[in-house]
Amino acid sequence: MTTTAGAKITVDPDPGYKWVGTRPVRHDGLDKVTGRARFGADLSLPGMLIGAVLRSPHAHARIRSIDTSAAEAMEEVKAVVTGADFPMLESEEGAGGEEAVDFRDLCRNVMARDKVLYEGHALAAVAAVTRRAALAALEAIEVDYEVLPHVVDVEEAMAPDAPVLHEDMFTAGVDPAPEAPSNIASRCVYERGDVEKGFAEADVVVEREFTTRPVHQGYIEPHAVVADTGEDGRSVIWCSSQGHFMVRTFTAKLLGWSPSQIKVIPAEIGGGFGGKTTVYVEPVAALLSRKAGRPVKIVMTRGEVFKGTGPTSGSKMRVKLGARRDGKLVAAEAWLAYQAGAFKGSPVQMGVMCMFAPYDIPNFFLEGFDVVNNMPKTAAYRAPGAPIGAFASETVLDEIAEELGIDPLEIRLINAVEEGMTAVYGPRYRRIGFRETVEALQGTPHYSAPLGSNQGRGVASGFWFNFGSNSSATVHINEDGGASVMTGSPDIGGSRASMALMAAEELGIDVYRITPIVADTESVGFTDMTGGSRVTHATGMAVIEACRKVVADLRARAAMMWDVDLDQVEWVDGRAQHVDGDRAPLTTEELSSASAKTGGPITASASLNARGAGAAFSTQMCDVEVDPQTGAVTILRYTTAQDAGRAIHPSYVEGQMQGGVVQGIGWGLNEEYIFDPDGVMENPGFLDYRMPVASDLPMIDTVIVEVPNPGHPYGVRGVGEVGIVPPMAAIANAVYDATGCRLGELPMSPPKVLAAIEANGD
Amino acid sequence: MTTTAGAKITVDPDPGYKWVGTRPVRHDGLDKVTGRARFGADLSLPGMLIGAVLRSPHAHARIRSIDTSAAEAMEEVKAVVTGADFPMLESEEGAGGEEAVDFRDLCRNVMARDKVLYEGHALAAVAAVTRRAALAALEAIEVDYEVLPHVVDVEEAMAPDAPVLHEDMFTAGVDPAPEAPSNIASRCVYERGDVEKGFAEADVVVEREFTTRPVHQGYIEPHAVVADTGEDGRSVIWCSSQGHFMVRTFTAKLLGWSPSQIKVIPAEIGGGFGGKTTVYVEPVAALLSRKAGRPVKIVMTRGEVFKGTGPTSGSKMRVKLGARRDGKLVAAEAWLAYQAGAFKGSPVQMGVMCMFAPYDIPNFFLEGFDVVNNMPKTAAYRAPGAPIGAFASETVLDEIAEELGIDPLEIRLINAVEEGMTAVYGPRYRRIGFRETVEALQGTPHYSAPLGSNQGRGVASGFWFNFGSNSSATVHINEDGGASVMTGSPDIGGSRASMALMAAEELGIDVYRITPIVADTESVGFTDMTGGSRVTHATGMAVIEACRKVVADLRARAAMMWDVDLDQVEWVDGRAQHVDGDRAPLTTEELSSASAKTGGPITASASLNARGAGAAFSTQMCDVEVDPQTGAVTILRYTTAQDAGRAIHPSYVEGQMQGGVVQGIGWGLNEEYIFDPDGVMENPGFLDYRMPVASDLPMIDTVIVEVPNPGHPYGVRGVGEVGIVPPMAAIANAVYDATGCRLGELPMSPPKVLAAIEANGD
Repeated sequence: MTTTAGAKITVDPDPGYKWVGTRPVRHDGLDKVTGRARFGADLSLPGMLIGAVLRSPHAHARIRSIDTSAAEAMEEVKAVVTGADFPMLESEEGAGGEEAVDFRDLCRNVMARDKVLYEGHALAAVAAVTRRAALAALEAIEVDYEVLPHVVDVEEAMAPDAPVLHEDMFTAGVDPAPEAPSNIASRCVYERGDVEKGFAEADVVVEREFTTRPVHQGYIEPHAVVADTGEDGRSVIWCSSQGHFMVRTFTAKLLGWSPSQIKVIPAEIGGGFGGKTTVYVEPVAALLSRKAGRPVKIVMTRGEVFKGTGPTSGSKMRVKLGARRDGKLVAAEAWLAYQAGAFKGSPVQMGVMCMFAPYDIPNFFLEGFDVVNNMPKTAAYRAPGAPIGAFASETVLDEIAEELGIDPLEIRLINAVEEGMTAVYGPRYRRIGFRETVEALQGTPHYSAPLGSNQGRGVASGFWFNFGSNSSATVHINEDGGASVMTGSPDIGGSRASMALMAAEELGIDVYRITPIVADTESVGFTDMTGGSRVTHATGMAVIEACRKVVADLRARAAMMWDVDLDQVEWVDGRAQHVDGDRAPLTTEELSSASAKTGGPITASASLNARGAGAAFSTQMCDVEVDPQTGAVTILRYTTAQDAGRAIHPSYVEGQMQGGVVQGIGWGLNEEYIFDPDGVMENPGFLDYRMPVASDLPMIDTVIVEVPNPGHPYGVRGVGEVGIVPPMAAIANAVYDATGCRLGELPMSPPKVLAAIEANGD
Repeated sequence: MTTTAGAKITVDPDPGYKWVGTRPVRHDGLDKVTGRARFGADLSLPGMLIGAVLRSPHAHARIRSIDTSAAEAMEEVKAVVTGADFPMLESEEGAGGEEAVDFRDLCRNVMARDKVLYEGHALAAVAAVTRRAALAALEAIEVDYEVLPHVVDVEEAMAPDAPVLHEDMFTAGVDPAPEAPSNIASRCVYERGDVEKGFAEADVVVEREFTTRPVHQGYIEPHAVVADTGEDGRSVIWCSSQGHFMVRTFTAKLLGWSPSQIKVIPAEIGGGFGGKTTVYVEPVAALLSRKAGRPVKIVMTRGEVFKGTGPTSGSKMRVKLGARRDGKLVAAEAWLAYQAGAFKGSPVQMGVMCMFAPYDIPNFFLEGFDVVNNMPKTAAYRAPGAPIGAFASETVLDEIAEELGIDPLEIRLINAVEEGMTAVYGPRYRRIGFRETVEALQGTPHYSAPLGSNQGRGVASGFWFNFGSNSSATVHINEDGGASVMTGSPDIGGSRASMALMAAEELGIDVYRITPIVADTESVGFTDMTGGSRVTHATGMAVIEACRKVVADLRARAAMMWDVDLDQVEWVDGRAQHVDGDRAPLTTEELSSASAKTGGPITASASLNARGAGAAFSTQMCDVEVDPQTGAVTILRYTTAQDAGRAIHPSYVEGQMQGGVVQGIGWGLNEEYIFDPDGVMENPGFLDYRMPVASDLPMIDTVIVEVPNPGHPYGVRGVGEVGIVPPMAAIANAVYDATGCRLGELPMSPPKVLAAIEANGD
């Protein structure tokens, strides 16, 4: 198979879709490029107050007292809240979409009570008539802190003598249950076979240690909210998020309100990448508005985003991998510890589950530790946890291949999981396309292109589950025969276009006659967050189901108009046709115009909890050049092949593939939270927190592989996340190829690379 | 039957509803009384421009030229439009809800082309950065008018030598078709039996002539709109109206856009009464926004509302009625001519259809003329056309009763229509409650209360069809077990509360756990206007149907959770119960919490074209005192009895009954458009256009009669309109009783009453 970067490889015969797989201009495109699209901060209401949040300057401290009286006395200040204004919640596991959420923890993260657990931890908020007045009010709040010892590093946090963040936290998942509290929230284990026996069979064993740093999703739009709570306690919340139903649920839980009394209107979202799957300022604004009786707007600064929202974990990992001479992996062992931030809930378990998921390994023992520390509570970040683990596993696999003299793509094919095999994390794979992604790279010219001096090439693969979950959709046929397609899924990656394409395919009308809408919490059925690469799959299924109901109704209307049986009416190319062909077909416009006489408006809804999200695999190849004088790594060429199942809108699939790679490059080469000895973040701005920009990067070449997911009518697999899993390992492997140095620590920033080169040269 | 005013008379046995018929505080109540509710003028957007409309100072003139160049050159002016910017539409009859709409006429009413046809007729509009700049721009527009002769009076407009408004208008409905254009747009006739023979059988015949004046609905909120049209031509329109789908359709038609490219978001509405069933500034703002590339807001002044929107017709009527000695009506003849305003479409046909609808008359010939004249195009006003005709018919009937010495309520009972009889306007009545409204008044203490000197008592009855039409509803069960109930019907008379009550009754949960929502055009299925007293009936039916689907789904979920057959699950009191009673019932909250495992979110939609709107009847009794020195009429006591079928929320039914009466009192006693000899309105403000205020009126006593409508699951009949039909006749009959003077001309303002008294005394 020979492929060109930018290509699409469709494994099955062409299904002959008319709209699915085409590349229309996105329906929200003009609004986005002309500035008309309204993001979280773009709404202002009459009488609106400006809210601001007081944040801890200390990484760990007891709050002896908070005196807000001076702030409250200020004429321009209309409301002040502290943790005492929030209800005392029990530790409760609630359904929060992808992961269970402890609302007690979430509440204390949103507004500290008793203790602050990281620099930037919110502990009071005010609403005032101007931002200046709000900031003055914050200065007038007197907090008496008892500064406590703090800990950031994950291994230090696990040490028996570490400062303990939560006196009531005892490690879950260990036997016997521990007697003393610690920062280790839980331990998880995945195992199979006999690891000792496995390693005994191995001809080569590699064992390495890895360190990664916390990084932020780096979305351009800061968190922003306008909340307007009425005298009757009913609140309207306008904000951007990855799930406005999530904002409703979480805000209600944290304030002790009923979800029914809250309406959340989704603003456009300027990036989320997992970081907008929880609440920060939203309940605060709602509560301030309740107190003040006026609308309240809160917009975070960039510094607040870095310090007061959720980065992903830093980690410490040890991985040991053994293979036979023929390249077959026989045993794996891994020990992973992830920083959770101030409250439990790092994505370590997903890191453990994903790291060897592409491979068939008979014996493994993988354990993960979720460790709290004095930094912001971590949040989801694109394939949460998976890139960290894959950095370790895919680097070690590269070393195995090198030692055995086997091509690194070839060793992946030797060990590739296939349909019917049991995944590391338990279930059996249905049809998957991992092998095809590896073969796709083998077919690119990139694979055999020559390299110059100080240049190297690396490959790596990655896995992500993809999620299903609850989605709803409603479809209306408008009087002009066009259709409105409403869903509850915020559009982060072009989902308006992909919903419109699927609706166009089902209804048989032009995609530009579809109006895809992201509806508020009162206007469409409950829908889980946009995350887990689930929207095109799950919300798409709801759209398809609603469209099929509409088509059934359209056929019934035509049958009524023709006075024939329903089975004599077919739906062909957007029109009702009589099977005998003896009547002029009826278009959606004609059927809609006549609808008052055939039963009223034509509309249908569908709600479902989607199963069958197909697993996603990506394999990537990276060329780098390393400057031996400075240690700077330049990405020369990058090709990513990914199984999309079916690319509904190939441009946005490619965009997701490229975006994942670029974020991985940032993570691999430059991004990190830098804390000073007091636990204060030293680089909370885009000048010092170095994300890659367009000029840092080559075009990221893409190969879409289409191995249809049997769990979706069109074969869709989520494509949003897996692309970020391989890059750090691919780059590390390329840097090794260029320099002979194996870097086990992220980011591979110039000082570290230079130090490695110099150590290697000694 | 003895009744007390304020009472409810339920004819059938108590159906035992739990929520229907109760009086909860309206869900939108706190927002309304605290000022948080947002009306049409309450939205402002960043970068928003202010629009203003240039209006004709002449009642009739040809536009020789419009020069907008000076206005366009102003720096603060961002867009100017005239009629030339609107597409040339063909005269086309389109579906506009209750009535057919000629979009060519509507377009020319919204923005004049070639000719202005009334003082206040819009002919240009501007959008500028401030209102001051917009007004300055209007002054800079130079219009060269050729002033033409004008005509306002309806009989003068019918004269062969009258100035003709439309050279292409030839009277429809006459045979042979006329050869010359005229102001008579059409003629309609309703007839039965042999009128000459009927009058020959009569023992008493009364023939009288009547005149009424144009009056305005007088809603407190002026028309207001914010339109935001993007580079892609997609427009979001925020405005108050009686139908945001209507605004979408009409705006699209007038601009040659597709309805799918327009989203209309309903603001709260501060009164409509039929006057907000069409568009004025909405398409203008959308077009200005398209040109300027910025949002545009237009808010009418009160003067613009009077001069630039739609009052109802003034009229000239001749009515002849004959009865036998026993009170049985035997023949009726009527000639009605209604002013349409500048474009065809007065409600004369409905006036003709309704005026004798309460009575069984074997012989009648009723004809109506729709006459254009140089005043604003009339719009719907509460039971459009019916109050005018009833003023004539019910006054003449009173005179017949007097001549025969029969009690005026008794003569109505003698002639009352009943189930199975054929209405004047064609169809057979299903079950109706006219007789019961008359008997209800007979049972009130008011009926037999003594009167003092200069005091009189009058009665009158009225009929209104009530409408059905298209409605949609969507119901979502929220995670807390509460429900959101979305409809597309703007809430004018408390329909949020009545929708919530019907949903509570169907779902079996507390009415305050229902969130009734008026959803925008993209969030709910197509829904016709709030008008025709159709919402509680038709939209209510959609809500009921959607709720029943939800209950079916809830039962299915419970069956799934219990692993039993669906027929073993009953829905009782908001909970799923097993028929054997051997399992703990499941609440909506429990079923909702588990919904992810039983098929996803719980939601259902319903769309229908409602039939079976039950006819409405009202009978009213009025006591007046007439000051013989000034001619001023004071309303002393007023009781209205009306068949509501089933009062879903009795307080809002009473509110509608009272509101109709009060508007009728204003129409009867004081309100009128006063034109100077040039056709310029002399009283375009609430100081000079005299509407009754609370201090002018006694409490309006109500008797709700419940004769269930067989066409609705709960028996609902529309209640919004019929209440305005009888008052003018009831007052005229009472004035006669007090003074011996029959007033055939509205309003019965002090000078006219005084003149009648003085003439009578001569």
